[in-house]
Amino acid sequence: MTKEILLLSGPNLDQLGTRSPEIYGPLTLVEHVDRFTKAAEDLGFGVRHLQSNFEGDLIEAVHAARGRSQAIVINAGALTHTSWGIADALAMFEGVKIEVHLSNPAAREPFRHVSTLASVVNGSIAGFGATSYSLALDAVHHLLGPQ
Amino acid sequence: MTKEILLLSGPNLDQLGTRSPEIYGPLTLVEHVDRFTKAAEDLGFGVRHLQSNFEGDLIEAVHAARGRSQAIVINAGALTHTSWGIADALAMFEGVKIEVHLSNPAAREPFRHVSTLASVVNGSIAGFGATSYSLALDAVHHLLGPQ
Amino acid sequence: MTKEILLLSGPNLDQLGTRSPEIYGPLTLVEHVDRFTKAAEDLGFGVRHLQSNFEGDLIEAVHAARGRSQAIVINAGALTHTSWGIADALAMFEGVKIEVHLSNPAAREPFRHVSTLASVVNGSIAGFGATSYSLALDAVHHLLGPQ
Amino acid sequence: MTKEILLLSGPNLDQLGTRSPEIYGPLTLVEHVDRFTKAAEDLGFGVRHLQSNFEGDLIEAVHAARGRSQAIVINAGALTHTSWGIADALAMFEGVKIEVHLSNPAAREPFRHVSTLASVVNGSIAGFGATSYSLALDAVHHLLGPQ
Amino acid sequence: MTKEILLLSGPNLDQLGTRSPEIYGPLTLVEHVDRFTKAAEDLGFGVRHLQSNFEGDLIEAVHAARGRSQAIVINAGALTHTSWGIADALAMFEGVKIEVHLSNPAAREPFRHVSTLASVVNGSIAGFGATSYSLALDAVHHLLGPQ
Amino acid sequence: MTKEILLLSGPNLDQLGTRSPEIYGPLTLVEHVDRFTKAAEDLGFGVRHLQSNFEGDLIEAVHAARGRSQAIVINAGALTHTSWGIADALAMFEGVKIEVHLSNPAAREPFRHVSTLASVVNGSIAGFGATSYSLALDAVHHLLGPQ
Amino acid sequence: MTKEILLLSGPNLDQLGTRSPEIYGPLTLVEHVDRFTKAAEDLGFGVRHLQSNFEGDLIEAVHAARGRSQAIVINAGALTHTSWGIADALAMFEGVKIEVHLSNPAAREPFRHVSTLASVVNGSIAGFGATSYSLALDAVHHLLGPQ
Amino acid sequence: MTKEILLLSGPNLDQLGTRSPEIYGPLTLVEHVDRFTKAAEDLGFGVRHLQSNFEGDLIEAVHAARGRSQAIVINAGALTHTSWGIADALAMFEGVKIEVHLSNPAAREPFRHVSTLASVVNGSIAGFGATSYSLALDAVHHLLGPQ
Amino acid sequence: MTKEILLLSGPNLDQLGTRSPEIYGPLTLVEHVDRFTKAAEDLGFGVRHLQSNFEGDLIEAVHAARGRSQAIVINAGALTHTSWGIADALAMFEGVKIEVHLSNPAAREPFRHVSTLASVVNGSIAGFGATSYSLALDAVHHLLGPQ
Amino acid sequence: MTKEILLLSGPNLDQLGTRSPEIYGPLTLVEHVDRFTKAAEDLGFGVRHLQSNFEGDLIEAVHAARGRSQAIVINAGALTHTSWGIADALAMFEGVKIEVHLSNPAAREPFRHVSTLASVVNGSIAGFGATSYSLALDAVHHLLGPQ
Amino acid sequence: MTKEILLLSGPNLDQLGTRSPEIYGPLTLVEHVDRFTKAAEDLGFGVRHLQSNFEGDLIEAVHAARGRSQAIVINAGALTHTSWGIADALAMFEGVKIEVHLSNPAAREPFRHVSTLASVVNGSIAGFGATSYSLALDAVHHLLGPQ
Amino acid sequence: MTKEILLLSGPNLDQLGTRSPEIYGPLTLVEHVDRFTKAAEDLGFGVRHLQSNFEGDLIEAVHAARGRSQAIVINAGALTHTSWGIADALAMFEGVKIEVHLSNPAAREPFRHVSTLASVVNGSIAGFGATSYSLALDAVHHLLGPQ
Repeated sequence: MTKEILLLSGPNLDQLGTRSPEIYGPLTLVEHVDRFTKAAEDLGFGVRHLQSNFEGDLIEAVHAARGRSQAIVINAGALTHTSWGIADALAMFEGVKIEVHLSNPAAREPFRHVSTLASVVNGSIAGFGATSYSLALDAVHHLLGPQ
Repeated sequence: MTKEILLLSGPNLDQLGTRSPEIYGPLTLVEHVDRFTKAAEDLGFGVRHLQSNFEGDLIEAVHAARGRSQAIVINAGALTHTSWGIADALAMFEGVKIEVHLSNPAAREPFRHVSTLASVVNGSIAGFGATSYSLALDAVHHLLGPQ
Repeated sequence: MTKEILLLSGPNLDQLGTRSPEIYGPLTLVEHVDRFTKAAEDLGFGVRHLQSNFEGDLIEAVHAARGRSQAIVINAGALTHTSWGIADALAMFEGVKIEVHLSNPAAREPFRHVSTLASVVNGSIAGFGATSYSLALDAVHHLLGPQ
Repeated sequence: MTKEILLLSGPNLDQLGTRSPEIYGPLTLVEHVDRFTKAAEDLGFGVRHLQSNFEGDLIEAVHAARGRSQAIVINAGALTHTSWGIADALAMFEGVKIEVHLSNPAAREPFRHVSTLASVVNGSIAGFGATSYSLALDAVHHLLGPQ
Repeated sequence: MTKEILLLSGPNLDQLGTRSPEIYGPLTLVEHVDRFTKAAEDLGFGVRHLQSNFEGDLIEAVHAARGRSQAIVINAGALTHTSWGIADALAMFEGVKIEVHLSNPAAREPFRHVSTLASVVNGSIAGFGATSYSLALDAVHHLLGPQ
Repeated sequence: MTKEILLLSGPNLDQLGTRSPEIYGPLTLVEHVDRFTKAAEDLGFGVRHLQSNFEGDLIEAVHAARGRSQAIVINAGALTHTSWGIADALAMFEGVKIEVHLSNPAAREPFRHVSTLASVVNGSIAGFGATSYSLALDAVHHLLGPQ
Repeated sequence: MTKEILLLSGPNLDQLGTRSPEIYGPLTLVEHVDRFTKAAEDLGFGVRHLQSNFEGDLIEAVHAARGRSQAIVINAGALTHTSWGIADALAMFEGVKIEVHLSNPAAREPFRHVSTLASVVNGSIAGFGATSYSLALDAVHHLLGPQ
Repeated sequence: MTKEILLLSGPNLDQLGTRSPEIYGPLTLVEHVDRFTKAAEDLGFGVRHLQSNFEGDLIEAVHAARGRSQAIVINAGALTHTSWGIADALAMFEGVKIEVHLSNPAAREPFRHVSTLASVVNGSIAGFGATSYSLALDAVHHLLGPQ
Repeated sequence: MTKEILLLSGPNLDQLGTRSPEIYGPLTLVEHVDRFTKAAEDLGFGVRHLQSNFEGDLIEAVHAARGRSQAIVINAGALTHTSWGIADALAMFEGVKIEVHLSNPAAREPFRHVSTLASVVNGSIAGFGATSYSLALDAVHHLLGPQ
Repeated sequence: MTKEILLLSGPNLDQLGTRSPEIYGPLTLVEHVDRFTKAAEDLGFGVRHLQSNFEGDLIEAVHAARGRSQAIVINAGALTHTSWGIADALAMFEGVKIEVHLSNPAAREPFRHVSTLASVVNGSIAGFGATSYSLALDAVHHLLGPQ
Repeated sequence: MTKEILLLSGPNLDQLGTRSPEIYGPLTLVEHVDRFTKAAEDLGFGVRHLQSNFEGDLIEAVHAARGRSQAIVINAGALTHTSWGIADALAMFEGVKIEVHLSNPAAREPFRHVSTLASVVNGSIAGFGATSYSLALDAVHHLLGPQ
Repeated sequence: MTKEILLLSGPNLDQLGTRSPEIYGPLTLVEHVDRFTKAAEDLGFGVRHLQSNFEGDLIEAVHAARGRSQAIVINAGALTHTSWGIADALAMFEGVKIEVHLSNPAAREPFRHVSTLASVVNGSIAGFGATSYSLALDAVHHLLGPQ
């Protein structure tokens, strides 16, 4: 049976491509997701994607992934730095969990230097632009094994 | 001409395989480096590796890479959290710079939550065990393009 | 006329029974609410319940309780530690307000040691598992008098 | 063409007039908005208004204003102190951005002394009750010039 | 055999009824203890009570309860915020341990916001005046089961 | 009788027009004061102005305004961040008190993020350049009513 | 009727005269108390004195002074810096309360720079050696008026 | 030869009697100084007094007292909390130095809890209203001996 | 003449053997004291021992040792972290002073990482279980020389 | 045309020679200035000097130097640690700016470890006594080139 | 087979005897090591010693001791306060680990109050001068049992 | 006999001329040292120079200078901010000690604002580029007197 990856995108990521392209790159979120999905399918994974500007939607998407998806790749945007609710939800999910960022938060404003998610994920990948997503896919592949 | 990756390993990494395998995994450093080197060669990269327990060695290895290597992949071990000297050296290196960790420092003791290197590298990858290195190689490959 | 208690449940509480039962106990949220409602009815109270993973829903439920409910019993989950919006809403509610927790936040991670709600409620009850809810009902009963 | 001002109101502001009138004054939000809209129309501006208790709604309203409104006047309520998501959204908006408060947060509880929005707006106005809104309108007028 | 509850009262609680009745209520300590004892006896518990203004007395009372009492209900007064000695003693007691406060310390001066006892008790109840004690009794009853 | 506004300008403001015009704008202090005075006179107010680089002068000007001026509009320059003496003086003044800044201190160096005056003024206006003064005048007008 | 002053001396003050005379002076506690008592009697006051190395004794002495003594002069020794219990007791005492120190705590180690008692006393006198006590007596005399 | 006391009054003290009389009492500064001077003369001291709202004046008055006055009694007002310049000046003065406050700064806002002067004076007296000055005079008298 | 060692044991140490033996070891306090006393007598020292759960008792025991005992070996239990009173008493004692702990406080909870006694003792020994006491005896022997 | 150096001396420096000569050396300020002026004249510079105990005077002297002096050498005394007003003034001055101290503030009290001026000057020289001034002159000479 | 103790000495310890003898005592490092070695041999232990001013040397010496030495006694000098690398190395060593200091760091500058090694050693001994080493040997002897 | 100056250069200084010339200037380290040496020889001093990227080398160079060199001029690079070992070594050196920086650390990142060396050197010179070294030489010359 095909294993499923849940790709989650937090606040303001729907504006990718139009938001500070010098920081986040020229691709739109649709383009990021398309690339990710195609590459995942090549590796035998299915992909579901949700972008939301609401913490509650992201929490519920994590709930829904329990017993259904094998991995979650999450870029929680600005909620990365304040949401203990997403962290609590991820802590309950038993599959692979990867935190991903396009930019390198540690090189930006101080409020971006802390992550509520960092201690509940398997690992994190930050600072490689669009490549961050393909590295996250590679990581899922490595951790779940070949499909 | 073959592009070269400098792989740097900081204090205590020479003990991999014998140190807390429940945290760092069962592979020795030699095995990590062999895997990394072979995979890199498959992609057309050369690899030089240095492990040292001395901050000065790591600084000088970075100096030596200027004008010679195209990328540095560094796991600075415990120096990650205190060495401004390695950070200053990396800031001078103009190629690709990637911080890598086998474990997820953000999920461990508080002193491991800060990195002096974070703001001078392109990006960081943490928490995937041996896979962290192969993701770092993928990242170099993406950032430097095909060889 | 029957007095009404608004029982509010914050993020991730809909996962009770499946989330860390060693911390939160084996009952589902439905079971908690059923027990609370039956015990409240025995005391002559009506109960409305809302669980939401959205801060906005909880704020609006507090607004709606103004002039309608006589008491609010709230377990705001992870929002306990960051939501000044719920605190502001509760501050406007003139009835009885009780903060309740299944686990004892003071014995867990540091971010759970602070509560934005603590200074606007009448009192708080924490650490007694399912019993926390029945104590909260007792407290409402004491504070509002017999129905 | 008429220039448009987006007036945004955050959590609990829908309760104005009934919430601590000794702090926030006797006017309801509808009355504040009506006054603001009429005065803006006299100056040749159109006004759209959104009140929401959900951070996500406010973020999306800012997104929608891009390329449509010339100015945003925002009273983010309690989200002023914690929402980096609204701050990120405002940072992308290229028009005039004004933070406004009815009360003077600096004279209240410590958590109200910091604003995540302060560094991304043009300026802020606080402490003048209903007059804060008319000053914000004046500021928009000055910054955008006569219509 | 009758189960015994040790009720402990810390510094200044012997002045209840005469100390800030607007905060602590009109009852004297004797009245609180009488009510608690009668209600406990109705549930089949015996009660021993100690009030002391000396940290050492409270520590020794906890020691004496080991192997004799099944539960401790403690209002440590101002020692709540500084006594690691009482906390260490409670940590050794294997029965039910409940922290109780008449007022809501979280809504008072900052030094009352921390409790050395919080992490060693089963749970805490605060802010309900005389009712705090009856809730604590309910909690003991729930946790120890019917007598 | 004409109501009087005291306009106070603190250290370095006498250099306006020549100091960092990219931050503070091209107008000199004399021009700011002239504009403010003319606009105030149109509204029926008299204006007195004092600029000083001495904290003591500003304190004494506030004293002198007691029983004479109806409003104080103050831009205390760098003293904004350290002078409790001006704050104490303003606290004694019973008329309208407005803190004004040309730039947005919250978007500059950390030492400019705190204001000793913030808790003793009616409100503050910051970040609108020359417009900040005209907004302050509008605020006085609103708060004192038509002359 | 003679008014009574309760003079309280905290931990280690019984060693005066033998403890660091270069800091605390050459007089023994008995000599300090004798001088204080005689001077008080000359002014028409009675004096009771208690020295104790136990926080509980000092708390109970304050309790006993309620309704009996008109003033408390207290040098709480090292408990000055940690005892919220004595502070709570003093807050209940309705007469004159004066904190006194032989040395100047603000010029010594950092832990001596904070006083839990400072906010509940009428005033404090520190740094004058034996004279601190006679100043405290003068202060009582001024505050209670001639006997 | 008559010994001289320099009495120094800092910012805003010239407003005594009109400033928050519920905190500072009903006497004007002139009345405080007259009382102090007369009582000092009765003890055989001369008094010079300076009130200034300028830190520089207070510093220079301390300089001028070197080699001329035998004691300085200083109420530095709000400069108490920030002026290292006055502290440096006092440190050079070799006579008796007493810090005095009408109110009890430790019971007011946090910024009043620190004194730059505390570690360079002989001692401090705070919280006794007008009596603070007469206690300071008593202290000078004790420390300098009978004239 | 026989030299005397005062062995002091603070709060909860009377429960040794029954308290967390995995941390503190299986010996009771009586056994620790017996071993210590016998070994000391072999070296020619006399031993007095006091265990108390009261800070005041420990302070007074230190006082009583002045001019009588040549050395104090103290395990102040939880008072180690908060008692400035014991520290002040020890500072007056002119003989050898040694702080001892069975466990290693630096490897436990943060509140155990600070010691009020550390700066007034000759040295400290921590973490060796029952051996800590015999090392302390060795240290006394070294510092006082052979008897 | 002769280039001019403005030499500025802050609070208490007029007392040099009489103030803590073990820290600041035996020379008076006049002697320091004379030496500096003569040496500067030998290098072809003119010197103006101002000492003031008033922050305002120092700010205005910096203003007056704009367009007139080529360099400012400033020892701001205790104002070094708190005056953002002098820092703002210096930031506007476009010539050479040098911070100088006779003693080494980093080796003294903590409040002397921070300098508001440090980030707006070209460089700083501290700890060399009278030589600090001659080094500052050398620095000016180097930076402005030969006259 | 003889058990081996590795004695490690960090930066600057090679200067013992010439460095601040009032703090560290008159013995040279060679003398300390000789005494330690002889006493150890009397107890049946072998001793290897390494002094280095390089963190890397100390780390590698710890590595080399794995599987060879039964105990490490380490005085890491100034590296005690910053080296997480030595701490990580010690954490891997499974034998007895003892931290030792000649002086009492807790009684010196604040930077000496923290130890990175404290939480990974069995215990620590500080403040007894040359005796610290002989106590450490005693501790090894106790912990490893007779040879 | 010729007096000797030890010139020490820490990590990364060997890259001068190629590292951020906009911050550190265009000269290589060899050029800096040559200039320094020639100028020193003109003044009659000998110069030894050591650059190292190893803390241990710098510590040992300081040791070697004891009894041989009369002055140390040190630019410790990034070790300035973390090395207590170099500070301890310098504290033992009895000659002249000068801290020197090419750039002005106080105007750069926060981690560069603290110096472990500051309190053990005679003085420091920062921010003058190549001139910093010649000022340091002047300082040595002044402090040691003419050769």
